[in-house]
Amino acid sequence: MPLSVIRGGARRLAARVGKYEVPARHASCSPQTEGSVVALAEARRFISDAMRAVGTAKDNADFLAEVLVEADYRGHYSHGLNRLELYVDDVAAGSCLPAAQPRLLREGPSTAWVDGGHGLGPVVGRFCMQLAIDKAQQTGVGWVVAKGSNHYGIAGWYSMQALKKKMMGMSFTNTSPLVSPTRSKGAALGTNPISLAVPAGSDSYVLDMATTAVALGKVEMQRRRGEPLPPGWAQGPDGAATADAELAYKTQCLMPLGGAEDSSGYKGYGLALMVETFCGLLAGSAYGPDIRRWGSSGQNADLGQCFIAVDPAAFAPGFEDRAADLLSRLRTMEPADPSRPVLVPGDPERAHMDHVNKQGGVRYVPQQVESSEKLAKKLKISAMKILS
Amino acid sequence: MPLSVIRGGARRLAARVGKYEVPARHASCSPQTEGSVVALAEARRFISDAMRAVGTAKDNADFLAEVLVEADYRGHYSHGLNRLELYVDDVAAGSCLPAAQPRLLREGPSTAWVDGGHGLGPVVGRFCMQLAIDKAQQTGVGWVVAKGSNHYGIAGWYSMQALKKKMMGMSFTNTSPLVSPTRSKGAALGTNPISLAVPAGSDSYVLDMATTAVALGKVEMQRRRGEPLPPGWAQGPDGAATADAELAYKTQCLMPLGGAEDSSGYKGYGLALMVETFCGLLAGSAYGPDIRRWGSSGQNADLGQCFIAVDPAAFAPGFEDRAADLLSRLRTMEPADPSRPVLVPGDPERAHMDHVNKQGGVRYVPQQVESSEKLAKKLKISAMKILS
Repeated sequence: MPLSVIRGGARRLAARVGKYEVPARHASCSPQTEGSVVALAEARRFISDAMRAVGTAKDNADFLAEVLVEADYRGHYSHGLNRLELYVDDVAAGSCLPAAQPRLLREGPSTAWVDGGHGLGPVVGRFCMQLAIDKAQQTGVGWVVAKGSNHYGIAGWYSMQALKKKMMGMSFTNTSPLVSPTRSKGAALGTNPISLAVPAGSDSYVLDMATTAVALGKVEMQRRRGEPLPPGWAQGPDGAATADAELAYKTQCLMPLGGAEDSSGYKGYGLALMVETFCGLLAGSAYGPDIRRWGSSGQNADLGQCFIAVDPAAFAPGFEDRAADLLSRLRTMEPADPSRPVLVPGDPERAHMDHVNKQGGVRYVPQQVESSEKLAKKLKISAMKILS
Repeated sequence: MPLSVIRGGARRLAARVGKYEVPARHASCSPQTEGSVVALAEARRFISDAMRAVGTAKDNADFLAEVLVEADYRGHYSHGLNRLELYVDDVAAGSCLPAAQPRLLREGPSTAWVDGGHGLGPVVGRFCMQLAIDKAQQTGVGWVVAKGSNHYGIAGWYSMQALKKKMMGMSFTNTSPLVSPTRSKGAALGTNPISLAVPAGSDSYVLDMATTAVALGKVEMQRRRGEPLPPGWAQGPDGAATADAELAYKTQCLMPLGGAEDSSGYKGYGLALMVETFCGLLAGSAYGPDIRRWGSSGQNADLGQCFIAVDPAAFAPGFEDRAADLLSRLRTMEPADPSRPVLVPGDPERAHMDHVNKQGGVRYVPQQVESSEKLAKKLKISAMKILS
């Protein structure tokens, strides 16, 4: 399985990163400290069973499970098992059609426009990313957009596919309106993530970030944990920042990367608009304030997504050597605090995967385990087996 | 002159944006309130004369002047006349060769690799952006990178060229190491700007942002004005944030967009690394910590730059209508403060251009006028004529 190459690199790197500890307020890739450990294969089995219980064919259910569990493995808990109910509800409500196959609507030497047919996001995304890679092999660049898609899990799953071909990969998706354009009282754009994966010999880096300070899932996790929000994460109904995770989750209005206007939040807003341009505007899907509200399953999500592959071999020779050199030099910069080494994008994920490997599985917080047990009863499937 | 189309739209829009006032701490595009007004044509004449005095041919000197004065016109004062001495010094020192012509090194259907030959940044950039647009007309996407380039002014000048062909344009450049990778005591990456210009019928938007909270030029301007820095802009020599503009300018270590790690500054760092990947790593120019220190003219800058054009006509029909609709809906969102309407990227620049048009020229702060007078004496050219 080609991702194992990346995981192998991850293990070697985790050793180098050493005693990397994610600080308490750095919500990304921080291993859960309470709850129950579940083997990765068992988490996949559970997700696949749940999807099959609402009528998804086995191959698509298995693939969705792979993408969701990859998120938990990498430490992006908000986008893993935590999202299963959303997929189950969408399929049960008929707003996501689990058997739909993506269809090519228009094609050029370096471009394609795809109709996802309201199928599963990962199925649409895998098709489009493969197409982008194929085109980049011919012309140096492949730029593919899809309409009629659904939530596709972590953006990084798609960008990382390009690494197998020694290419750079990018992936973007629009999402339900959850983010305030700077100065606005309410939300009009999604958390609109950007992912870029870059090969660097036996090394690589993977940027996978929402264009907000945090993704809504991070607010969800603070709420599940009963913890307050740091400043600059989210707005209350009056348009002012709030620390109340419950109120923030109810208001559903995150702040863009940079926070308030005087700390350059308008740049994060600009990046969210860039992602919406590559997704909804190019693809002709729903966009901006017209995307269905977060958590509503009654209507099609009709998300727009964008997938780019670029072949570095089309440019200056020696790309991967330069990339490896730069990554290594960044990691060996003198840190302000000697106990916290400088990292590159993807290192926290590597440290987290190493942690999961050592632990024998991923640790889910108690509320997550409870929700899964309820779901198992509701769908009449076996509950997740707990390892410890 | 095709940019007049954009300026025409700007004027119509400035009327809509109405009484837009840039808040005191929003350093971008805030009209200068002290100093002397200079007609745009006179500012161009002065810059061109200065460049010719150090041996630049008239057409290249005139074009550099056009790009620099466009920055002042748009309110990006840090990248206009403020940068002239850098270009003069580089040419005088022989590290920038003002007669060099860009040369194609490798070409594919959608890609090109260009050697800038250490020529003037704007001359290299214009060549590459035109090539990207030509390729996008053939294949839907053009992706061009250059090595051996120099400072090219505002990134937005290049991305906006695509608007004339109803395309999206992007431009990126690496710059001298001035930014701390999150957790690092010192700088290793540049302010590495991202620009994206998007056509929307008679409207458009232009994102043009450093991947730091602010560009170094903004720190320079605070220093010239004798004002302190807001938090999250820059680090002192100990790796902690500082408000001292003089110390920050001396230390030359800005913080990435998002500021500290706990407010997601590692995302801004990731974006700066993305830009370096598209520029130095793809182009095989100098990159990261190897780029010459800011302000040193003794060695070649050997910057890497990246230019992308994408033809929306290769994807879903109706792109510009959707873009115009989204821009208009963003601008009419209910603002948290009724006196500060929601804007889209490029609106502050439009309001600033309208202000300059009404004023009959651009207002330069007293320190800027003084520096220009000194430069005029040194180069034996006529000083800038002051209008008022």
